[in-house]
Amino acid sequence: MDTQTIEQANSRPGPQADAVARARCLALDAADPLASLRERFALPEGTIYLDGNSLGAQPRATAARIADVITREWGVDLIASWNKAGWIDAPRRIGDALAPLIGARAGEVVIADSTSINLFKVLTVAMDLATSRDSRRRVVISEADNFPTDLYIAEGVVGRRGDTASLSLVPATASAARHDAIVSALGPTTAVLMLTHVNYRSGAMHDMAALTRAAHDAGALVVWDLAHSAGAVPVDLHAADADFAIGCGYKYLNGGPGAPAFLWVHPRHVDRFSQPLSGWMGHASPFTFVPGYAPAAGVSRFLCGTPPMLSMAALECGIASLQLHDGSHEDAANPMPALRAKSIALTSLFIDLVEARCRDALLLATPRDPAKRGSQVSFHARGALAGHAYAVMQALIERGVVGDFRESSAGREGDILRFGFTPAYCRYVDVFDAVAIIGDVVDSGVYRDARFRVRAAVT
Amino acid sequence: MDTQTIEQANSRPGPQADAVARARCLALDAADPLASLRERFALPEGTIYLDGNSLGAQPRATAARIADVITREWGVDLIASWNKAGWIDAPRRIGDALAPLIGARAGEVVIADSTSINLFKVLTVAMDLATSRDSRRRVVISEADNFPTDLYIAEGVVGRRGDTASLSLVPATASAARHDAIVSALGPTTAVLMLTHVNYRSGAMHDMAALTRAAHDAGALVVWDLAHSAGAVPVDLHAADADFAIGCGYKYLNGGPGAPAFLWVHPRHVDRFSQPLSGWMGHASPFTFVPGYAPAAGVSRFLCGTPPMLSMAALECGIASLQLHDGSHEDAANPMPALRAKSIALTSLFIDLVEARCRDALLLATPRDPAKRGSQVSFHARGALAGHAYAVMQALIERGVVGDFRESSAGREGDILRFGFTPAYCRYVDVFDAVAIIGDVVDSGVYRDARFRVRAAVT
Repeated sequence: MDTQTIEQANSRPGPQADAVARARCLALDAADPLASLRERFALPEGTIYLDGNSLGAQPRATAARIADVITREWGVDLIASWNKAGWIDAPRRIGDALAPLIGARAGEVVIADSTSINLFKVLTVAMDLATSRDSRRRVVISEADNFPTDLYIAEGVVGRRGDTASLSLVPATASAARHDAIVSALGPTTAVLMLTHVNYRSGAMHDMAALTRAAHDAGALVVWDLAHSAGAVPVDLHAADADFAIGCGYKYLNGGPGAPAFLWVHPRHVDRFSQPLSGWMGHASPFTFVPGYAPAAGVSRFLCGTPPMLSMAALECGIASLQLHDGSHEDAANPMPALRAKSIALTSLFIDLVEARCRDALLLATPRDPAKRGSQVSFHARGALAGHAYAVMQALIERGVVGDFRESSAGREGDILRFGFTPAYCRYVDVFDAVAIIGDVVDSGVYRDARFRVRAAVT
Repeated sequence: MDTQTIEQANSRPGPQADAVARARCLALDAADPLASLRERFALPEGTIYLDGNSLGAQPRATAARIADVITREWGVDLIASWNKAGWIDAPRRIGDALAPLIGARAGEVVIADSTSINLFKVLTVAMDLATSRDSRRRVVISEADNFPTDLYIAEGVVGRRGDTASLSLVPATASAARHDAIVSALGPTTAVLMLTHVNYRSGAMHDMAALTRAAHDAGALVVWDLAHSAGAVPVDLHAADADFAIGCGYKYLNGGPGAPAFLWVHPRHVDRFSQPLSGWMGHASPFTFVPGYAPAAGVSRFLCGTPPMLSMAALECGIASLQLHDGSHEDAANPMPALRAKSIALTSLFIDLVEARCRDALLLATPRDPAKRGSQVSFHARGALAGHAYAVMQALIERGVVGDFRESSAGREGDILRFGFTPAYCRYVDVFDAVAIIGDVVDSGVYRDARFRVRAAVT
């Protein structure tokens, strides 16, 4: 039995066919080698949570761990916990736990600050490095539909350099043309190619190795934002020969709201320059309290201030929630291949079922080729749904299907309904039930109710 | 009865005199109008915690609040909590709660990132502002014995400007001469005077209003680091006419290990320049996802990435733990005058008792005039203790008196034993008992045991 069989069953109308197709999803869940991972997460009753790409669900272990950090490590041992509980090593220890998931090695990753701040650090250093090699290289290349904060940070970085640096954006194009458009933009003035591996709106995934090679061939460095990749798709930074990477702790890593972010630098670059946020935690000897800055060796120099331990500990739980420790999996050190296989099955099933049920209203915005997408699926609202995407999502949320909405970028098809599938806790039956509810909302026109048009501050 | 009476009692040798003096401390605690605040904190049995200037103690309310953030706001409401639980407003809401403690007004303070990162933001903007007024003003003046991370950040900020900016440090001097030395350093090239209000080693406190006036008279701007002030001493940024301020959430604000920091900008400056860490949370419209950066109006533009909500919520509890809500205090909106009165009484008592007991071994490193110190007292180790300060502190910690050690800065008297007195949870009897233990450790020579010389990673 495969997802295609379910799709065929579902495309036949009638409750009996639905029951058969749903039973097949339940059977897929029963046979899922990752099914037990779901038990690690607290998921609310009556909710199908398809927004783990925005905020990952809560690992059950987190509450007890944080209570222990608060009441014992902080409450009893107080300041001694910087040594006794290993707080001071947390940025490196948690970085080491994350490293296998992104193809980095022990000692190469730190957890710190936010994704935006980490991007500021590595992009500044990447520019330093690129211009030190060739002073004509002053341009950061990125994409117009990159996640906005990446572009804002890049705008800030280039705007404050004294060397007429600039940011050049490849216009948003259809997925198939993106790769070539980026390669074409590279040239003798390119300092850094700054890309997000998996696009936040469309879910389209870049070929990291190929684009890194193209950038290197053009004499440029590459900074990868792994916000929508880490914990969602296999990443191998060393195999791709990447230069710098940063990413987010609160999406597929389940680190909790606003979890600290991560940062990786290839060993060939890490000791070359100081990063601009030269705070004491990145100092070679932070507790000798000498007045002059001397950067630590290795990636520790990319730390700045005191780590926020409650949020750090929650991220540690989130990363642990993805580990396959029980020995039943071939590659216990790297859960990503198994998670990726399930992610592809879930997203493929979702695409098939939605297209069978709502083809006139929803146009696939995500690459159909599984190799070219991350762990989310987005649809443009079209036909009767055009202009109603926000309201449709609100109606879905009211019925327990939680995805999110993203406005169309200029010149593109309609607004987007975005659904993330976190393989650690999303089931095949969730996909089936979500599509049934999506179909009902689309067909019923309930989304036209005025209450679904009330915009919240955060969308 | 006052602390002088206790000191006289204590200076007379013998257990009977000690018992009388200790009883007087207990009586002071019984009469303390702030005594009930201690109940708000979980303090370990058998410990006299005199290190709240490094890591504030744990408010009892924090554990339950964070459990609710994790299990309900995150676990149940998930992504909806950005709106429903007000996560998105937390940086401003918690800033508003803090504002009265530092003489700021509602809407002027945000909670974000770390002290070091916030200093990077405001110092960069202060330099932008100063040089825009007068291009000759390129020098940041600070003190050689400022907290090192402030100097490291300033070194980074000036080092990366294209305008030959520099950092000039006033040498460490005796407390009495500091003020004049700083004023003398100001001149026509001074862009910014960057000072920490209360010195981390000596506890000496600057006259914020007088130094701000001197800097303005010299045409310079002032950045104040309130790390050892906020929650410890009254601060009135508007009365002092300060320009920028930043500070720490995990010391006297009891926000927990690595709690986010705060940032204030005078309204006259706040909309003048963009800060360098131009992330999406500081954007005028973060959720419209437009590609170009446009800073938010007001202090929100000093935000950068997604706030770490667990650590944010813990800081909110920490600030709440200082509020005098019961109506029995004259100024319920600002607990600082009452806290300051107790702080002065505690630190004065400690100085008197230590000098009566250990004058030959410990030399006061903190200004004797209460108006010139914060809420900590430091002593140089001298005589038989010279060279043993670290071991003495380890011996004290083993006996339940938790302070900390700081190395002597070059050219000064011996290493420092540092004791912080957080008026919210420190009692008069704690001061008495701590001095008795200090006296025993000093007299017994137990600190000469080799085990007390083993250095920890964090000191």
